Amino acid sequence: MAAISHKVHVALGERAYDILIGPDLLDHAGAILAERFPGRRFGVVTDIEVEKAQLPRLRRSFEKAGLGFSVITVPSGESTKSWQHLQTVVEGLLAAKLERNDLVIALGGGVIGDIAGFAASITRRGMDFVQMPTTLLAQVDSSVGGKTGINSPHGKNLVGAFHQPKLVLADLSTLDTLSQRQFAAGYAEVVKYGLIDSPDFFEWLEAHQAEIFSGGPARGEAIARCCAHKARVVIEDEKETGVRALLNLGHTFGHALEKDTGYSDRLLHGEGVSIGMVLAHTFSARQGFAPGQDAGRIAAHLHKSGLPTTLADIPGTLGSTDTLMHAIAQDKKVSRGALTFILTRGIGKAFIEKNVDPDAVRTFIEDMRP
Amino acid sequence: MAAISHKVHVALGERAYDILIGPDLLDHAGAILAERFPGRRFGVVTDIEVEKAQLPRLRRSFEKAGLGFSVITVPSGESTKSWQHLQTVVEGLLAAKLERNDLVIALGGGVIGDIAGFAASITRRGMDFVQMPTTLLAQVDSSVGGKTGINSPHGKNLVGAFHQPKLVLADLSTLDTLSQRQFAAGYAEVVKYGLIDSPDFFEWLEAHQAEIFSGGPARGEAIARCCAHKARVVIEDEKETGVRALLNLGHTFGHALEKDTGYSDRLLHGEGVSIGMVLAHTFSARQGFAPGQDAGRIAAHLHKSGLPTTLADIPGTLGSTDTLMHAIAQDKKVSRGALTFILTRGIGKAFIEKNVDPDAVRTFIEDMRP
Repeated sequence: MAAISHKVHVALGERAYDILIGPDLLDHAGAILAERFPGRRFGVVTDIEVEKAQLPRLRRSFEKAGLGFSVITVPSGESTKSWQHLQTVVEGLLAAKLERNDLVIALGGGVIGDIAGFAASITRRGMDFVQMPTTLLAQVDSSVGGKTGINSPHGKNLVGAFHQPKLVLADLSTLDTLSQRQFAAGYAEVVKYGLIDSPDFFEWLEAHQAEIFSGGPARGEAIARCCAHKARVVIEDEKETGVRALLNLGHTFGHALEKDTGYSDRLLHGEGVSIGMVLAHTFSARQGFAPGQDAGRIAAHLHKSGLPTTLADIPGTLGSTDTLMHAIAQDKKVSRGALTFILTRGIGKAFIEKNVDPDAVRTFIEDMRP
Repeated sequence: MAAISHKVHVALGERAYDILIGPDLLDHAGAILAERFPGRRFGVVTDIEVEKAQLPRLRRSFEKAGLGFSVITVPSGESTKSWQHLQTVVEGLLAAKLERNDLVIALGGGVIGDIAGFAASITRRGMDFVQMPTTLLAQVDSSVGGKTGINSPHGKNLVGAFHQPKLVLADLSTLDTLSQRQFAAGYAEVVKYGLIDSPDFFEWLEAHQAEIFSGGPARGEAIARCCAHKARVVIEDEKETGVRALLNLGHTFGHALEKDTGYSDRLLHGEGVSIGMVLAHTFSARQGFAPGQDAGRIAAHLHKSGLPTTLADIPGTLGSTDTLMHAIAQDKKVSRGALTFILTRGIGKAFIEKNVDPDAVRTFIEDMRP
């Protein structure tokens, strides 16, 4: 069946599912879904850009397989992860008369996966859903593991649910339509897996970066390795009570920067993570945990990939240090006022530090400002 | 500790919890929570009426126990179960800087339990919550079992989550502040348990109705028996894939009537259930499933309790039969166009019927119209 080049199984018991990766999966999606979910109807949630670029292919494959489906389209961009658009998607699924056993399909990047998955989790108290990620970031990170949600004025992803998909279909050809900037932003999350606990993978990325960016076979392999890594972590700690928090390497700084730039085009999520990872390594070195040279090696690799690595790389004026500290304190990982950060003892040696001194962070941010 | 007159355990594995019933539990709530959830902070969600009637007691007991808490107040009534107020509650919990391990408290009737529990389930991807039901309906039904949610323009409870509370505290004294009409509406759900599979309990209710309404010892016993019944059903079928649907006896008709009357004061939820249960028994008799006299016996008992039992008892003009059929077809229990109803072979012999002919329902509604 179809051109599946890699398959990763997420062994979560009754919530287990497969991640299928291949060069043209959207053209075979209808047949795959008809086989795996016979008799269901589908509600496709997508955004305006992906609707133009990818929906025609999905539509053809659905029609060929005789599948019934409705389409709900929302605007592109992080600001779509709002109460307003959540309501639009949920009411759209209800208006389409989808029943409790039907499936929601998230066709798009991380924003679509997050909002569509969340909408599925609360429509009729929980509908099944399928991820069809069309960006690198979504394929290696957000489409796997069941974190869904929207943003609050108080911070990113503060409203949401853990809701695992029933299947993930990652079509590699969709990545060819991404801008270099979007692709690079997703690549930051690829690098993250190496930095957490896989120094070999980081070295492999240093060696294969050009091939990954140009679309050679290393691209599919990199994606499959990231998915396998994430699956392993999610199986161990589905609800993030422990080790899953390591996947937030670079994200506490990153989220604060994203909030400060209004979740706008000024800083894509992956770009925030890129800067955040460099900051986490630099801060870890300052705190005496990590050797000083790792941050530089990482920054060089990210920079070569077209990613920002310092606060100075963010266009426009950054908010005050107080504002950034406030955003950090609202992070979901905060507990009783003490800050939790993912710190590191070097490349591939990240760890969870639950008692980070806010004053040390404040001073560090002051020093890092341009 | 405190005056706990009845205790019911809901044995749901890692989601297990206790239901404590007693004459003045709100006065002891602070001590109970301090012992069971040391070191947590609390966000109390309540409505304007309950805030006046009950919050001062809770406040005193919290202060005595040295517990920190915030209060979020929403309007009273079914129309509070909306997107708008859900957003108010969630953003209120975030504004109060409650953390992932803190607790949400639902202090109020079914509306508050539903919206506060749902808000807890999606704030920071899931916070724990405690039910403190202050109406009979909430104490015997909605506070137990983890169904939470809001209404959609497409129908009641179509948006929500399964999210079990960590504890239920049912203070019997709160029922003394209810109007006769509110108390009677809750009593409809008490009667429901007898009708489903406990003819002995229905007979006991017939014998003890006056004592239950006047606040004698039978009141606490009735509530405890309902909670134990519901707990048994929820343990067997938490997500309502089977037998839990029996708890919807009278609810498919009832929901349609509630929707038709705009979820307003014209028809309380329990009143809709009361009429719905009589209709379900009458329809079952028409279909040849049940003896004809049971519907009359049930109607007599409900009528004696001050409850409406026929469509003619609803004030104002009812919508067309088409409108009612449309509402029935949007029920969460619908599957592939066939209607699912809880029907019965007599008192205490309810069953799930998945292939009810829509035309038979339509004709029946026509005949029942005043």
